[in-house]
Amino acid sequence: FKQTNQGYSNRGMSLESDINVTNTYYLETDQAIIHKKPTPVQIVNVKYPKRSAAVITEAYFKQASTTDYNGIYRNKYIDFEAKETKNKTLFPLANIHEHQIKHMESIIRHGGICFFLIRFSPFEETYYFPAENLFPYWYEKQKDGRKSIPYPKIKENGTIIPFHYQKRVDYLSIIDKLYF
Amino acid sequence: FKQTNQGYSNRGMSLESDINVTNTYYLETDQAIIHKKPTPVQIVNVKYPKRSAAVITEAYFKQASTTDYNGIYRNKYIDFEAKETKNKTLFPLANIHEHQIKHMESIIRHGGICFFLIRFSPFEETYYFPAENLFPYWYEKQKDGRKSIPYPKIKENGTIIPFHYQKRVDYLSIIDKLYF
Ligand SMILES: [Mg+2]
Ligand SMILES: [Mg+2]
Repeated sequence: FKQTNQGYSNRGMSLESDINVTNTYYLETDQAIIHKKPTPVQIVNVKYPKRSAAVITEAYFKQASTTDYNGIYRNKYIDFEAKETKNKTLFPLANIHEHQIKHMESIIRHGGICFFLIRFSPFEETYYFPAENLFPYWYEKQKDGRKSIPYPKIKENGTIIPFHYQKRVDYLSIIDKLYF
Repeated sequence: FKQTNQGYSNRGMSLESDINVTNTYYLETDQAIIHKKPTPVQIVNVKYPKRSAAVITEAYFKQASTTDYNGIYRNKYIDFEAKETKNKTLFPLANIHEHQIKHMESIIRHGGICFFLIRFSPFEETYYFPAENLFPYWYEKQKDGRKSIPYPKIKENGTIIPFHYQKRVDYLSIIDKLYF
């Protein structure tokens, strides 16, 4: 593949699509079994037309009670949340909810590997950021402290993830270094 | 609680509700973090009314590509499928799909604990049935063999799960015996 094509593909995709491509590659090469959880939906009305599939005619988005992705890698339970920002100087904590933090704390307590994948889209950079390193910032925010993590701190306490054509967000390579 | 109340509660609930009550109890007592995956839905149309929540006005049920539940217990990745039958003599294999079997095989290969919770509702009995013990029956069915597992084989190769008021389907007690 030409470098230019790679650059183009990279720019065009959202973090979520890149992670999905990566997870499919992990699955097909039998390295890890990691899936995105379906979007939680509160179903209110369903119609059952004759001779065709059931149609949901009224439903609402529910707030997710956990994280975006989970699965298994090298005998370990894996759990993570993906977040993308257009900001160039900081990562905002506004969209990280208390029940998600509690969930992640509890995963770590039970022996799982838990982290954030954070993309700064203006730089096309994606970071592996251990959940443990995010908690102190989140609690500071709860105590009316700053509402974000400065970009240099993400660089300092996280690890940049290299881009490959199939492993677009190769977070397992970081887990290998950190845990094995 | 009176015995009669317990009996009443037990009869009234579906396997899924019983598992959800159990998982909530496990979560609140910090024993395990196990959640039901949301129902996968293909969203086709969404309306955004002013001053109120987005409404999904057209969506379809998608076939689940994995299993019903997953999570972590004592450092181990847990993954299972719940199935209820009204049959009194056999457990039908019709609703277990190839991609689910492949998923479960791969979970086991990667070090996870994988099983079925099978309820015979006429007997109010729920069995822990290791995925490994189901695979041979499923492959036999694929080769035009029998399409079900006889009830006595479920008893023989599975473990009956005791009913408790809060731990309605206490499958962790079986995992403790089998894996720890
Ligand atoms: Mg996300
Ligand atoms: Mg089921």
